[in-house]
Amino acid sequence: MAMNGQQPTAKPAPAAPAPPAPQERAAVRGPLLYEGKAKKAWQTDDPELLIMEFKDDATAFDGQKRAQISQKGRLNAAISAHFFRLLGARGIPSHFIGQISEREHLVRRVQIVPVEVVVRNVAAGSISRRLGLPEGRELPFPIVEFYYKDDALHDPLINDDHAVALGAATRAELVQLREQALAVNGILRPYLSGLGVILVDFKLEFGRSRGEILLSDEITPDTCRFWDVQTHDHLDKDRFRRDLGGVTEAYEEIWRRLQAAPAAV
Amino acid sequence: MAMNGQQPTAKPAPAAPAPPAPQERAAVRGPLLYEGKAKKAWQTDDPELLIMEFKDDATAFDGQKRAQISQKGRLNAAISAHFFRLLGARGIPSHFIGQISEREHLVRRVQIVPVEVVVRNVAAGSISRRLGLPEGRELPFPIVEFYYKDDALHDPLINDDHAVALGAATRAELVQLREQALAVNGILRPYLSGLGVILVDFKLEFGRSRGEILLSDEITPDTCRFWDVQTHDHLDKDRFRRDLGGVTEAYEEIWRRLQAAPAAV
Repeated sequence: MAMNGQQPTAKPAPAAPAPPAPQERAAVRGPLLYEGKAKKAWQTDDPELLIMEFKDDATAFDGQKRAQISQKGRLNAAISAHFFRLLGARGIPSHFIGQISEREHLVRRVQIVPVEVVVRNVAAGSISRRLGLPEGRELPFPIVEFYYKDDALHDPLINDDHAVALGAATRAELVQLREQALAVNGILRPYLSGLGVILVDFKLEFGRSRGEILLSDEITPDTCRFWDVQTHDHLDKDRFRRDLGGVTEAYEEIWRRLQAAPAAV
Repeated sequence: MAMNGQQPTAKPAPAAPAPPAPQERAAVRGPLLYEGKAKKAWQTDDPELLIMEFKDDATAFDGQKRAQISQKGRLNAAISAHFFRLLGARGIPSHFIGQISEREHLVRRVQIVPVEVVVRNVAAGSISRRLGLPEGRELPFPIVEFYYKDDALHDPLINDDHAVALGAATRAELVQLREQALAVNGILRPYLSGLGVILVDFKLEFGRSRGEILLSDEITPDTCRFWDVQTHDHLDKDRFRRDLGGVTEAYEEIWRRLQAAPAAV
């Protein structure tokens, strides 16, 4: 089911996110729990639930480059909600409950696993630099990478042994992270392909909640590389990282294409 | 069996390596096949066999620091032969056939797998820097790391997916590399402990020969971290990397202790 009542349209224009469903209006912001680079998390009157607010702030290169990107918070909230609904409809458990305002998600409170999971279909960015793979080369299979989520250490690449030795995750959790990440890729890659978008790579975060691993955080042009299938134009944060201009327009273009395809049927 | 007829002695002094066994004298150097930072490889009249010569040259920090270390080639040839004999006697297949002169090993020619395998028992060096683990902290279990053997890329850390996508090794080979490396650790760590040496970490290389994976290259203070169990003195190449002095003396001390313990019975 499409929780915000989106319908596919033949020629969608960039539009404001759909209004929240009535049952999601109840959540009320409590104290600020956490402020990150691109999002804030607020407590609610339910200790199991948080409100996640998407900001216009953008950072790159380990926080060295900073800017505000007009409309980014609004667009990312809409895009991420769309992806979480799509994935939820396909059986991927996540923290996402619903979008409650233009920039806010109501989410289940989780303990974030300090392992960032990256899936790569096409070489770009750090894997090109590190392993000498030309940017744009399709990889022979989707590559999964784990990064230790630690700002002071600059989120280093780790292997399974590192993750376990650091106490970041158990072996069983790593199996789940890898399987869930590949399952997400198996859903999003063909879905986006149908919208003329190559899913080059993306980063996921997961959280623990009542003994379950839940997909968490966000799925947006901040955390994915999206290339137009025809032009290979970057429709993602690389426009900001690489000073390509047209950042807001790229995020709007992704949102425009997503609105053309229902998140769930 | 101890191929060079070493016997344990109560109070060994640093000594020249044992003379080669007669059957190993036949190998004759052919054309130089390869010259690396610390070793040369020569063809022989048998296309399946190479002569590996240990040089006194030392490099560190990706070749930025270079020096000659007096006696290093001789000591490393003796130390590595000792370890390969020990491991061979315990069932680890390797390229090592025998030591044929002070600085030379006769080895089986292999196709080197371009994956360096590091086993770590105690945090030191790059893992301390990358993951914030204090140098000297014992790890909860032996950690295995793979590095892509590529000078131009500075031997980056890789995971299994990377190794396979790069064509560096198959999944089945990676399983073997990991198992063999842990088996080597399971033999060398207690053996060295009995000599008052902590095996902090070490790097192995493996080669393919007739469909088999053979431990190759060398096992020396150039490729291992050895700490004295009492003083934590570095008895390895860190003396060179960190300008601690006494490099030759440290290598001699390792060789002295090894001579006190038979490689095989």
